[in-house]
Amino acid sequence: MTTDSTRSDPTDAEAACFEAGIKFGTLYHQFAGTPVAPDSAASLETAMEEAIENQPHCTDVTVDVRTDELETELADSAADYTELTGRFLEVEIVVDYEDCEVVTRMEMEDGYPLMRVESVRGRQ
Amino acid sequence: MTTDSTRSDPTDAEAACFEAGIKFGTLYHQFAGTPVAPDSAASLETAMEEAIENQPHCTDVTVDVRTDELETELADSAADYTELTGRFLEVEIVVDYEDCEVVTRMEMEDGYPLMRVESVRGRQ
Amino acid sequence: MTTDSTRSDPTDAEAACFEAGIKFGTLYHQFAGTPVAPDSAASLETAMEEAIENQPHCTDVTVDVRTDELETELADSAADYTELTGRFLEVEIVVDYEDCEVVTRMEMEDGYPLMRVESVRGRQ
Amino acid sequence: MTTDSTRSDPTDAEAACFEAGIKFGTLYHQFAGTPVAPDSAASLETAMEEAIENQPHCTDVTVDVRTDELETELADSAADYTELTGRFLEVEIVVDYEDCEVVTRMEMEDGYPLMRVESVRGRQ
Repeated sequence: MTTDSTRSDPTDAEAACFEAGIKFGTLYHQFAGTPVAPDSAASLETAMEEAIENQPHCTDVTVDVRTDELETELADSAADYTELTGRFLEVEIVVDYEDCEVVTRMEMEDGYPLMRVESVRGRQ
Repeated sequence: MTTDSTRSDPTDAEAACFEAGIKFGTLYHQFAGTPVAPDSAASLETAMEEAIENQPHCTDVTVDVRTDELETELADSAADYTELTGRFLEVEIVVDYEDCEVVTRMEMEDGYPLMRVESVRGRQ
Repeated sequence: MTTDSTRSDPTDAEAACFEAGIKFGTLYHQFAGTPVAPDSAASLETAMEEAIENQPHCTDVTVDVRTDELETELADSAADYTELTGRFLEVEIVVDYEDCEVVTRMEMEDGYPLMRVESVRGRQ
Repeated sequence: MTTDSTRSDPTDAEAACFEAGIKFGTLYHQFAGTPVAPDSAASLETAMEEAIENQPHCTDVTVDVRTDELETELADSAADYTELTGRFLEVEIVVDYEDCEVVTRMEMEDGYPLMRVESVRGRQ
């Protein structure tokens, strides 16, 4: 297999993956730090989904604020809320750009909230 | 009227006003920049209210995302969403700290989103 | 000691405390979540100080990103950076409003980043 | 030209573009809303560059806060600072992932801060 060492324009699939990455960075850094408790998790999920779905080429966002993890954290705490961060989140974002569909996901892996491209469909 | 030039501890009413200020700074800088459109304004309002009400001493938060202003902005734009900022927001936050109740408000004044203390009740 | 149960306008000292609270909420929720490592702590401190000092009535901001705490966290981690949060921060903010000077501070107390008014000077 | 309608794993170049998008979404939504004035622009630029360069696979970040645009905005304003937003920013981010180098850029286009992939090098 050879490697192309010249610079070239992105393919549609590459541009679609770039767009999906923007959505993930936006979602995470817009909402990380938000005060959250089990009772307010549902409204935050909905707001995050609807906010990010506004962005271009974004067809579907699914946010799960893991209330089980919130409850575990708060059981050991004097506080009754905490700040939203990666270990309380599972997210799927689907982007459709020029007929390329990219499915991307964030979930905890080895204690780190890993964002990755799960699949690409529609490469030319 | 004389002025006390020594440093002293805050009164309960002063501490209550400090707490209310924290909530306003939190609300504004956590959520400013969120992608928003008329259709997603309601879920964002609810999430903002419930998030900030988690914070200590915060008894009530009312957020109005001004969809009329959003629509005016978007009518002149190629985009169908924008970023949340002060001119799309009217907010009231009530804090109760050691029996002092502070009512605070943010609304546009001379083109600037002004945050202010509207009233204090319960000074000793 | 009697308590005034009527609503009244804030005193200058109360308004000064409200302003100081706004600065703390802004500083925390604007910058919490920022990727940070020991080598990038200094530039983040400076940017946080200069950003918040732009705000009205804010005469001085001192931010200490606790690199010792960062190093402890990263020693146990596969990553070489983390997200800025309260336990990596010590902050002092001074506000001067209508000749009232308010000194406010954030530091860890019982595992929680506590913001408080340290002193008020200039009450009438 | 045919289109592949099956789902498949991302190529290294697609993953590199996803990583670059994450950095852009992070940079924008972490720092949009920061109080900024011409005098504090330089420290914010440095902090943004060093913060994002902490993220995985990110080899270079160049942030230009457009002080000319800030000055134009502030000339028409009663305030002496404003909030950081896209029209004050020009950004280049370079990501290197598995020997694929992706150069990405944000600048204003038709009044909108457009993020795009400028070039990809190292496709297999």
